[in-house]
Amino acid sequence: MTRVRPPLVASLGDPAGVGPELLLKSWTAREEERLAPFAVVGSLSLMKEIAGNVPLASVRGIESIAEAGEIFADALPVLDIGPLPYTPGAPCREGAEVALASLVRATHLAIGGNASALVTGPIAKAELQNVGFAHPGQTEFVAEACDVAAEDAVMMLAGPSLKVVPMTVHVSLASVPALLTQDLIASRIRIAAKALARDFGLANAHIAVAGLNPHAGEQGRMGREEIEVIAPAVEALRAEGLDVVGPLAGDTMFHAAARANYDLAVCMYHDQALIPIKALDFDRGVNVTLGLPIIRTSPDHGTAFSLAGTGRADAGPTIAALRMAAECADRRAEQLA
Amino acid sequence: MTRVRPPLVASLGDPAGVGPELLLKSWTAREEERLAPFAVVGSLSLMKEIAGNVPLASVRGIESIAEAGEIFADALPVLDIGPLPYTPGAPCREGAEVALASLVRATHLAIGGNASALVTGPIAKAELQNVGFAHPGQTEFVAEACDVAAEDAVMMLAGPSLKVVPMTVHVSLASVPALLTQDLIASRIRIAAKALARDFGLANAHIAVAGLNPHAGEQGRMGREEIEVIAPAVEALRAEGLDVVGPLAGDTMFHAAARANYDLAVCMYHDQALIPIKALDFDRGVNVTLGLPIIRTSPDHGTAFSLAGTGRADAGPTIAALRMAAECADRRAEQLA
Repeated sequence: MTRVRPPLVASLGDPAGVGPELLLKSWTAREEERLAPFAVVGSLSLMKEIAGNVPLASVRGIESIAEAGEIFADALPVLDIGPLPYTPGAPCREGAEVALASLVRATHLAIGGNASALVTGPIAKAELQNVGFAHPGQTEFVAEACDVAAEDAVMMLAGPSLKVVPMTVHVSLASVPALLTQDLIASRIRIAAKALARDFGLANAHIAVAGLNPHAGEQGRMGREEIEVIAPAVEALRAEGLDVVGPLAGDTMFHAAARANYDLAVCMYHDQALIPIKALDFDRGVNVTLGLPIIRTSPDHGTAFSLAGTGRADAGPTIAALRMAAECADRRAEQLA
Repeated sequence: MTRVRPPLVASLGDPAGVGPELLLKSWTAREEERLAPFAVVGSLSLMKEIAGNVPLASVRGIESIAEAGEIFADALPVLDIGPLPYTPGAPCREGAEVALASLVRATHLAIGGNASALVTGPIAKAELQNVGFAHPGQTEFVAEACDVAAEDAVMMLAGPSLKVVPMTVHVSLASVPALLTQDLIASRIRIAAKALARDFGLANAHIAVAGLNPHAGEQGRMGREEIEVIAPAVEALRAEGLDVVGPLAGDTMFHAAARANYDLAVCMYHDQALIPIKALDFDRGVNVTLGLPIIRTSPDHGTAFSLAGTGRADAGPTIAALRMAAECADRRAEQLA
């Protein structure tokens, strides 16, 4: 039997984006998708207004997240942080303030253990920066709130076909080779392996590491990073008993037969990781932050301002993020039981 | 009615690799796969020996490729270039000599118009270099034989889901940014567009160009190659009337809905092009050389020495290469009709 654990908490994301309506759409799919109870930290007036546009949606204010489990069957529980007009597609300062307040409170509910996982909605970085948000993104904010160094918060994209962890992310391609060090690669893979064991039920995950260069460099003929950086990192991890192989040729790692050989693909840069997962699992990939004391997932898309309010945004990624958060939370609860 | 055109010609590839047996396997599938007649330039004794291991395979020597069409229904036609023992998995000097002679003769049959397309089998570069082959690969050899500069022979990988053209290929990732120039990109896309019109029935192909950096650089925040190199190349091509868009974020270009918007994806480097096509179309991708006066295709795999002679090698890519060569040849024949 699964131990009873607190509900999940979701931050709103930018109120002018698709985040709020996707939480409502997800709630309306709670039965067929078998979603575990979650509460939203946000504006109750805004959520009620949006609920008017979402068939079957219903919203109810709560005072404490502990009430969420009880009322989730009947309405989406909202921890109110004040009124806000709904301006779909038109982000504004007040909206950014609500988005930030939501992120802060939701994060602390998870850190305090009142929520068993955090699911963050899509924000617009530029808008948040206007209201004093000083972090490059939500991941770095959550890491700092958890007292974890930003470099130890490891992004994983996880879909039904594939899990990938990129070693570098939002940097120019030209700067990638110099950023890759043996320590960085070994350290992030250690963090990922530990998180896969704890939260994904993969006690000794098979981890495949991509090379940086075409054909993993072909013994140094097309770049030496494999020889000088990646292979030594893999060797060090194997010496520690981790099941890590590589560097492998990136282009032949992602077809179905190759994917059957590993649980996690470690990639050297953004597109090497995100091209295959988006080609294979578009709209079903979840962004998970590994290495935090809390569980944090996020749908892998942005605010999509141009879609907000049209009803056309797809709740699939939000549902996937909610489900993965719940599955990870269940595993942690079982370990404590 | 399709104009009667000459048969296709296939080069053998390394005789110790899987190339010869895959040609035989393909021939045995000629009816269900509706393969157009093709002849192999190779060792008749070798092909007879291998045919003994391939169920239903039959081989017959021919004096002139013109005989191929007539006997193809009954046996795989072979233009003999001398006896050779079969040593699967063990490449040798004599085998490399036969591979090279096969490539040379097959190429010239295509250039002379006696064959309507060239399908090259997988070779081992190191072996060929031992017998005096001075080109980096078969593509460069064929280009030179056709009097086309190597940089104007454009590699395309084409599968059922996707066609991709990488702007750079077998170079280290660190060297990619400096190799990308507006001229290189514009020139290769022009060549690709012309070939798609001539050989693939795509008169005004929709071409999508990937950025180099994550999210295509986000307006220069993560690299400036999009602004300084790729966007100007796209603008120049659009000014010429080509239907080219980009630079687009690489990671969101390859899911099914995105692929529906274009006929060809132009990528900046090896893995950006080959990861998506191998993830989506593994074992069905064909390597096509665009920009040559002849049609040239190739299965997109190597000699697979360890599989040679086991009967386990998959003829799918060879069949795909033979079919694509025939389709392109039919289109050219129709244009002449």
